Amino acid sequence: MIIEVIRLKSFVDKLINKIKKTDSRICVGLDPHLDLIPEYILNNAREKYSDHDKAIAMAVLDFNKKIIDEVVEHTAIIKPQIAFYEKIGLKGLKTLEKTVEYAKEKGLLVLLDAKRNDIGSTAGAYAEAHLKNENIDAITINPYFGLDGVKPFLQYKNKGAFALVRTSNKSAGDIQDIESKDGKKIYEHMGQLVKKWGNNYKGDSGYSNLGAVIGATYPQELKKLRSLMPGVFFLIPGYGAQGGGADDVASGFDKEGLGAIVNSARGIIFAYRNDNKYKEKEFAIAAGEAAKNMKEEVNKAITKFNG
Amino acid sequence: MIIEVIRLKSFVDKLINKIKKTDSRICVGLDPHLDLIPEYILNNAREKYSDHDKAIAMAVLDFNKKIIDEVVEHTAIIKPQIAFYEKIGLKGLKTLEKTVEYAKEKGLLVLLDAKRNDIGSTAGAYAEAHLKNENIDAITINPYFGLDGVKPFLQYKNKGAFALVRTSNKSAGDIQDIESKDGKKIYEHMGQLVKKWGNNYKGDSGYSNLGAVIGATYPQELKKLRSLMPGVFFLIPGYGAQGGGADDVASGFDKEGLGAIVNSARGIIFAYRNDNKYKEKEFAIAAGEAAKNMKEEVNKAITKFNG
Repeated sequence: MIIEVIRLKSFVDKLINKIKKTDSRICVGLDPHLDLIPEYILNNAREKYSDHDKAIAMAVLDFNKKIIDEVVEHTAIIKPQIAFYEKIGLKGLKTLEKTVEYAKEKGLLVLLDAKRNDIGSTAGAYAEAHLKNENIDAITINPYFGLDGVKPFLQYKNKGAFALVRTSNKSAGDIQDIESKDGKKIYEHMGQLVKKWGNNYKGDSGYSNLGAVIGATYPQELKKLRSLMPGVFFLIPGYGAQGGGADDVASGFDKEGLGAIVNSARGIIFAYRNDNKYKEKEFAIAAGEAAKNMKEEVNKAITKFNG
Repeated sequence: MIIEVIRLKSFVDKLINKIKKTDSRICVGLDPHLDLIPEYILNNAREKYSDHDKAIAMAVLDFNKKIIDEVVEHTAIIKPQIAFYEKIGLKGLKTLEKTVEYAKEKGLLVLLDAKRNDIGSTAGAYAEAHLKNENIDAITINPYFGLDGVKPFLQYKNKGAFALVRTSNKSAGDIQDIESKDGKKIYEHMGQLVKKWGNNYKGDSGYSNLGAVIGATYPQELKKLRSLMPGVFFLIPGYGAQGGGADDVASGFDKEGLGAIVNSARGIIFAYRNDNKYKEKEFAIAAGEAAKNMKEEVNKAITKFNG
């Protein structure tokens, strides 16, 4: 009798493989702001479905699928932001389910941006809610509760979590920039904790299934955290619409040009609005070209940085 | 022509009115751990519905309604924890919708425990998702993003938000106890920020629609924060199952015995499991009696504390 052992691959190793395969270090954020989606997509859905929420939800699904079709060869991973689906109600969450199912079919990794957090037993319920879904590979979390609110998200070897360390928004520093007695800022403490907590969850690559979120809008902090947190994979949001550029994010990568993915949402999925050359119906093509450009810009900046 | 001006009451003033009316400073947490719900409730639903998720979701709804019927006269507010509903999937979230609708019909205030958080535009989507629901009066949030991630939750005058300051869990101190240069700990900084941020959102009562979450399991910190944060309403979790007692929470109230609500979930809704005198079918009666007892214990401890 042959005993077959199914050895689950670590999330982080799967991510690194996929990055190498696509030669892409970007992440496409699926944040469907309803006022930015092409009118014709919304109108088509309204003609087909009389229920308001259903029409909106189906329009978003149609939009997402067309975007996925065009970005799939330029990205390793997509990141739907659950807030925009919760906003549409239960039908919106159904669209999220269908979106991640479609992305998986196309071979993409899926990171659910949900910033979930709570005490241990409740964090466990969140982890079960989202990471048990076979179409979701990782989730973002908020680590203000400390280790026992983080651990439940690390219980599945083939799944990952990205913990907030330095956020990309303007008021990030309100708490994160407070200087502690030993001269370190709070985001640095959080970075060190995330590194320590992730030590027991490393893949063959040497990176951990517990990653960190570090905003592209704070390049100095990003650089500091990269040297402070070897072995921690970074999710770098804030590229494009929020103001971060390719040179800002280059220092977030390791010497092999790995160890991070850079997210852009509005800058890719609504790229058709930024350039007159695209007609409304070409929104998906525009997204595909924006993803390709961003992929190349990021790769170029890393090569330059690692000189 | 008479022009009628509808003046929306602040959330916090509604809460205080309701506390005075019920003479209750407790909050009943609706955290339906599936392994603690009476077997007969689950079996009834399984007989009725062949779909697994549907049966679970309907069992939880049945459970919640029976609990609400019995605790309604002993509590001002209920607090469903959304993680336990997300865990059941879309049908679980439908049960949450039906639960808050039922609670509203019964005249209760509803606090959605969701710890939502993100950059401003995304926080706005979360606020719209939950606070636009007429059956939800307030939400818990995680303020690690700073002010611009908090503001969107304060845009509705008749709705409130409770921001994490000192959490009730064991590893709360990992970040929250770090001492800053000026000798204050991070939870104190967070407390001061929450107080400052809430200043523009005060009701007639002098309390703000931006409240704070302070765990009952840290009575010294609770006492310190009460004096540091006048005008900020406290949600105090961690009572009962997590270890906090009535004497621990008394210092969270102001001289009039207001300014806080104390949450218990497992200690009330699963009270039937802690006392042999209750049969399984008496779970709701047990919850009602536990709520009444807790209400009285908390009131007594406050009277004693305020001398």
